Amino acid sequence: MKPTLESLCDMPEVFQYGATAGYGPLLEFLNGYFELPETHIAMACTGSQQGLDLIARAYVNPGDKVVMEAPSYLGAMQVFGLVQAEIVTVPQNAHGPDLVALETCFAEQAPKMFYAVPDFHNPTGVCWSLETRKQVAALCEKYHVALIEDAPYRELRFSGEALPLVSDFCPQHSIVLRSFSKIASPGLRVGIVTGKRSYLEPLIKIKQGADLHSSVPMQAVLLGLLQHEDFDAHIDTIRALYKTRYEKMFNALTNYLPEGCDINPVEGGMFVWVTLPQCDTFALAKSLLSNGVAVVPSPVFYPQHQLASSALRLNFTNATPDELEEAVKRLSKGLSEQLAQPEAMQA
Amino acid sequence: MKPTLESLCDMPEVFQYGATAGYGPLLEFLNGYFELPETHIAMACTGSQQGLDLIARAYVNPGDKVVMEAPSYLGAMQVFGLVQAEIVTVPQNAHGPDLVALETCFAEQAPKMFYAVPDFHNPTGVCWSLETRKQVAALCEKYHVALIEDAPYRELRFSGEALPLVSDFCPQHSIVLRSFSKIASPGLRVGIVTGKRSYLEPLIKIKQGADLHSSVPMQAVLLGLLQHEDFDAHIDTIRALYKTRYEKMFNALTNYLPEGCDINPVEGGMFVWVTLPQCDTFALAKSLLSNGVAVVPSPVFYPQHQLASSALRLNFTNATPDELEEAVKRLSKGLSEQLAQPEAMQA
Repeated sequence: MKPTLESLCDMPEVFQYGATAGYGPLLEFLNGYFELPETHIAMACTGSQQGLDLIARAYVNPGDKVVMEAPSYLGAMQVFGLVQAEIVTVPQNAHGPDLVALETCFAEQAPKMFYAVPDFHNPTGVCWSLETRKQVAALCEKYHVALIEDAPYRELRFSGEALPLVSDFCPQHSIVLRSFSKIASPGLRVGIVTGKRSYLEPLIKIKQGADLHSSVPMQAVLLGLLQHEDFDAHIDTIRALYKTRYEKMFNALTNYLPEGCDINPVEGGMFVWVTLPQCDTFALAKSLLSNGVAVVPSPVFYPQHQLASSALRLNFTNATPDELEEAVKRLSKGLSEQLAQPEAMQA
Repeated sequence: MKPTLESLCDMPEVFQYGATAGYGPLLEFLNGYFELPETHIAMACTGSQQGLDLIARAYVNPGDKVVMEAPSYLGAMQVFGLVQAEIVTVPQNAHGPDLVALETCFAEQAPKMFYAVPDFHNPTGVCWSLETRKQVAALCEKYHVALIEDAPYRELRFSGEALPLVSDFCPQHSIVLRSFSKIASPGLRVGIVTGKRSYLEPLIKIKQGADLHSSVPMQAVLLGLLQHEDFDAHIDTIRALYKTRYEKMFNALTNYLPEGCDINPVEGGMFVWVTLPQCDTFALAKSLLSNGVAVVPSPVFYPQHQLASSALRLNFTNATPDELEEAVKRLSKGLSEQLAQPEAMQA
C-alpha cells in the first residue's frame, strides 16, 4: 500500500466529500475485476459488514424471515436481530445446506432472504459443492428468495479447485458481499457489495443517511493495491502460509485430540470446526483462555444457544506452526480434563 | 496530513481490526482536547453523520417525537425519518429557538430528544445567544429531553466571541456530535461523538453490528493533524478566508438584491440565509443553476415542504470573492425576473 499512501497527498479530490456509492475509479475498476454483468453495479461500504447492515435495513421488516445455516456468522445474526427479523435455520452437511430442509423451509415459511457463506463458512469451514451451489440458486429462483452471498474467505483457497459463486447461477436474485479484510487489511474498512442496480439503489439511499459515504482515501488505497503488479503474488503467499499452518494444526488435532472428537477438513479459509462429546464449551473456552489458548465455543454461532451441539471454532491463520502445535496440545489436555469431570454430560 | 500519511506504513497496528469505539490513542487525546468530564467518553464514527444515525437507531422507536428547529438540517431529517420518528418543529429567531414554543412543545408533547445546531445553524447561519443556551439546557433538564448538539461549524467563527456549548450547561442530558469535515477533511469520514458513558454504550453496541468500526488509518491521520503544531494556525487561516468571502457576499447581497429580500448576518459557519417574497424557490434554483449559480431552496429544509416560507441557502466558503460577487449579481437578476412573473405569488 505504500506507494498509494504516499501519493494520497497529491490527490486532493479524495479528501473532499465523495459519492455515496463509492470512489468512482475504484467502482469502475471493480466492474472489470469482478466481471459484473451489464445489469449489475458495485458499491463501497465501511467493510462488507456495513453492506449486510444496509441490506437488513433496506429490505427486512420486523418479523420477516431470514434463513441461515446453523451454525452461522455471529455478525449476521446481530445485524438481522437489530431489524427484528425472525431467523430460521437449516442444518449444514459437508457439502453445504441440507437441500431437503432448505426447500421445505422456502416452501413453508416464505422467507425474504437466505444469508449464506458458501466459501469456507464461518464457523465450520465448509465449502459448498458445485452441485449444491446450482441447486440452492435454483431454489432461490423458484421460491423468490433473495440470496445474500457473503464471500469474505473466497480468495483463501489453498487446495482443491475454485468454484463459481452461487450467485453466478442466480445473478438476478442475489447480492454478493465482498471483503478485502482477509486479503488486504481489515483496518481500512472497505468492503464491496455487488448486485443488480435495482437491488443496490435502496442500499445507497440508506447509506446516504447512515454516513454519507465511506472514507475516500481508503478506497483509493484499496484500488492501488488491487492494481499493484504484485497483488496476485501476495495472495499466493497468504494461501501458501495458511496451507502450512492449516496442515500443521490438522495433523496435531489428529494426533492429540481425545476420542469422540471430530474434525472437518477444509480446503481454505481461516477456521477448523471441531465437534466434541457433549460438554460445557463455555467453561472449556474459559479454562483454555487462562492457559493462553483462545477458541470460540459453538453456542455463540446459533441464534438459540441451547440448541447448539458441543463444538469449537479454531483459527489457524494467526499463529506460527509451533504455536499451533502447542495450542492443540493444551486444547487436547484441557478437553480431556473437562470430559473426565462427572458433570460434563449435564452441561 | 502528509507526515502522518507517510508514517502509516510503519504503523502496522492501524491496518488490523480495531476497537469499535475508535482508535485508542485518538480517543485518549480527545479526552483532553475536548476537556471531557470524568463521566464522559468519546467514540469515533464514520463522520458525525453516522453518530447521528447510531443515536437514532439506539434511542428512537417508531412514533417517538424528536424536536428540531425549522428550518433544519436535511441529513438529520433523513436519519430520524429512517427510524420513523415523528419530527416536531419549533420556530427559530435570531437568537435560537423560540423558547416559549420550545417549552410548550416539551411540556405538551413529551419528546425524546431535541436535535439542535446551535453554532452557525444549517441552513440559517443563526448562532444561539448565551442566554438561549442556558435556557435550552435548563428546559432539557426540566422536561427530561436529551439534547443532541450537532456542532460541525463551531470552529468556523470569524467574528464575535466564542460561546460555551449548550451541552456545557446540561452535560448529563446531552450528546455532542463533533465534525472535522469543515476544518480538516470530509473525505476521511471521521466524526466524534461525546457524552456520558451510559449514553454512548448503546451506540457502540449498534456500531459493532453496523460496521465493526471506522477506518483506523484515517483516525490516525486525524490524530496526527490535531497534534500538528500548525493546526491552530490552519484554522485561523480558514476563518480569515471565510470572513473575507462572507463579507464580500454580504455586501454584494446588500447592494444587488431586489426589494423585499432579507439577509441574516452571521458571525461564522458556511451559510447565509436569504428570505424572499413568496415565490417558487425550486423553479428559481433550477433557473439559477442553468446560469452557473447553485443555491438550495428553502422547502428541502422543512419536514413538510409546503410549510416553508420562501428563502434560499447560500454558501460563501467555496468560491472566490469575485465569483461570489458575480454569483450574487446573477442571483439578483434571476430573482427579479422570477418575482416579475405573474404566477410568482401562487407558487
